[in-house]
Amino acid sequence: MTEIQFDTSLAFARELDSKDKLASYRERFVISDPDLLYFDGNSLGRLTKASLERARHVVEKEWGKGLIRGWNQGWWDATSRVGDKIGLLSGAAAGQVMVSDTTSINLFKLTLAALALLPDKKRIVTDTLNFPSDLYILQGCVQLLGRGHEIVRIGSRDGDITPDLDALEKALDSDTALVTLSHVVFKSGYLYDMDAITEMAHRRSALVIWDLSHSVGAVPIELDKSNVDLAIGCTYKYLNGGPGAPAFLYVNRSLQDRITSPIQGWWGQDNPFAFELDYVPAPGVQRFQAGTQPMLSLLTMEAALDPLLEAGLDAIRAKSILLTEYACHLADALLTPLGFTLGSPRDPARRGSHVSLRHEEGYRINRALIDEMSLIPDFREPDNIRLGFAPLYTTFSEVWEGVDRIRRVVTEKRYEHFTIQKLKVT
Amino acid sequence: MTEIQFDTSLAFARELDSKDKLASYRERFVISDPDLLYFDGNSLGRLTKASLERARHVVEKEWGKGLIRGWNQGWWDATSRVGDKIGLLSGAAAGQVMVSDTTSINLFKLTLAALALLPDKKRIVTDTLNFPSDLYILQGCVQLLGRGHEIVRIGSRDGDITPDLDALEKALDSDTALVTLSHVVFKSGYLYDMDAITEMAHRRSALVIWDLSHSVGAVPIELDKSNVDLAIGCTYKYLNGGPGAPAFLYVNRSLQDRITSPIQGWWGQDNPFAFELDYVPAPGVQRFQAGTQPMLSLLTMEAALDPLLEAGLDAIRAKSILLTEYACHLADALLTPLGFTLGSPRDPARRGSHVSLRHEEGYRINRALIDEMSLIPDFREPDNIRLGFAPLYTTFSEVWEGVDRIRRVVTEKRYEHFTIQKLKVT
Repeated sequence: MTEIQFDTSLAFARELDSKDKLASYRERFVISDPDLLYFDGNSLGRLTKASLERARHVVEKEWGKGLIRGWNQGWWDATSRVGDKIGLLSGAAAGQVMVSDTTSINLFKLTLAALALLPDKKRIVTDTLNFPSDLYILQGCVQLLGRGHEIVRIGSRDGDITPDLDALEKALDSDTALVTLSHVVFKSGYLYDMDAITEMAHRRSALVIWDLSHSVGAVPIELDKSNVDLAIGCTYKYLNGGPGAPAFLYVNRSLQDRITSPIQGWWGQDNPFAFELDYVPAPGVQRFQAGTQPMLSLLTMEAALDPLLEAGLDAIRAKSILLTEYACHLADALLTPLGFTLGSPRDPARRGSHVSLRHEEGYRINRALIDEMSLIPDFREPDNIRLGFAPLYTTFSEVWEGVDRIRRVVTEKRYEHFTIQKLKVT
Repeated sequence: MTEIQFDTSLAFARELDSKDKLASYRERFVISDPDLLYFDGNSLGRLTKASLERARHVVEKEWGKGLIRGWNQGWWDATSRVGDKIGLLSGAAAGQVMVSDTTSINLFKLTLAALALLPDKKRIVTDTLNFPSDLYILQGCVQLLGRGHEIVRIGSRDGDITPDLDALEKALDSDTALVTLSHVVFKSGYLYDMDAITEMAHRRSALVIWDLSHSVGAVPIELDKSNVDLAIGCTYKYLNGGPGAPAFLYVNRSLQDRITSPIQGWWGQDNPFAFELDYVPAPGVQRFQAGTQPMLSLLTMEAALDPLLEAGLDAIRAKSILLTEYACHLADALLTPLGFTLGSPRDPARRGSHVSLRHEEGYRINRALIDEMSLIPDFREPDNIRLGFAPLYTTFSEVWEGVDRIRRVVTEKRYEHFTIQKLKVT
């Protein structure tokens, strides 16, 4: 598909839409304002019609009528049932993925579990491109343990777009317990080679934790085939789970009976309804549960997974690459002359499903797009405007129109009356 | 009100209903099957009409139409806004309660924070009546720290109904860092004297963590006036928040700048949207947040708090006592002859809003009540049938009818064809 000769006409965008095999999936989503260009599905995915129905059903029927009986009618096993569906989207056989808590809390649980398995190794390797919450969690784990663990953060050689892989390889030594990285980097969209990095870590007998938050649902992932040890991820981005929908974690079957959660709650107890006074970990990945999960959010999220499962990750990835390639082409032709630079890798094989455009006026341009141009990207410090493309509902015509609106905001100087003041968006 | 001369006639129940000043609150709830006697509001509260509407609004309007903009329109500050409302229900001034994660995870955070503040003290005092998940969490904290902390579990002298308060007082010594108890005990409904126990702990310079899961929304609580240090609680019981609705935590203002969370996530960072690489704790209780909270569950829960705030805890408590006193009277008269014993304190001042009835066939009787008698209590090992009374929607006629159905199940031996097999209900 990289053979396609893109051009900048709207007619070309429409031609791409007419050939799009996933085009019909857009109808599965609630799109109440067709003029709104929503390029923030990498932050909060759109609402599916299935989730709208499911949320109603959960509240009115399952809770309102079913009351406590809901726990025996699909709630209690939802964390593993929905976990297995996420497993289908990430190459994990059943029984290894659980829906649970938040991404940060899952990283906390798995980091401490991994470090406990390798008590003599003191080094944790990550990078400065990782999502800051992941870095904060690691810092908290090190401080809590107080056993001299060291966090090594490798950097970038190109302005925080691409990690320094040579430095990463050098940082891995025999003292390395853990390598943890974001599979797709939140600012630049850089996509790590999961196979290669996991193998590199394993050569040093280190464990890996991959954060799939910005890749799952947009990029094919093969957790089992890549021999990944541990993974975590978020469900409200490309999985379209809804604001703050609970996160997930993956524990490779080979590790499940050798590690335990530091947060020992009753949902991770072997027999929670016996109400015994001493904790015995449940078998398998269930032991990484702690407390009761938010069912309205969780079950509403479950319904959103079906369109992704039906479409399949290969088709989703193919369209995602075409969307980002097309956006890069249009940006090169129309936005580079206006002071934008590409803040994402140029090689589509190393790029997730969002494209960052950097501009010294990025913050104000982003505000003007939202407030005056009916275009929602998001902004990440210091100068990144992120355009997230969700293959199930983003059209090529939207990409064309989006680049055109960005062009107009700048050429018409429509951002200049905005003040510099920080947004609160996730 | 303990002066009332109860009798066992249905007419008397109807008279109590006719005098009930909170009777109109029942209309605020979705009650689709009036024949169903729902005595499990202490496990999962009923759905309010306000929550039904709010859930629809959150999904259709706030997420479906508003998309990512929801974070600036009431989502981002929901954890503190709703926390403050829970503060109003528990005697905490604003800025001390946050909605966050699960009860178990909140106990984990606060336990480690408390122990870090008192590093030289090694003793944690709790009791065997505490909710097992709380005990498991404490065990996990001790194991994780590996610094020789000891958990002392005081027992009961009367078959797990009432804690042994003499033993509790003796267990508190100068090495005691922490006392943590369930304000209302999950099996027996025993209600601790929060003032007295907190003061007892403070005399030994220990900190307290109260678990309010089974009291908040049913019993007046004065966290500030009682000088409570730390508290946690659940929102899906008497707060009617919905299945798995997120929990809350309280950090007394005097401690807020002296303790930090071991789970350092971006929601607890001083400036999360700066995406800095090093964690700096947010001021105040906000630092006990970690990751993104489940908004559908959280906002649906928020709506359920209003009827409780309107009714007021004093009126709620007065009716709660009348409901449990009445149930005890009927049980004494009608169920004791059938082999039941009271598994709750007889003194209403020491009892929460549920009554446990113990019977050697409790498990099968409970099953028969659910499956054949349209009555939902719940069962807790080994022999407790818990009857939870939610003053905003439980009527006195329901209590009368419930006791009558229990009587009939036993006299008609309708439980005998059930097998002993464990339920999965929370």
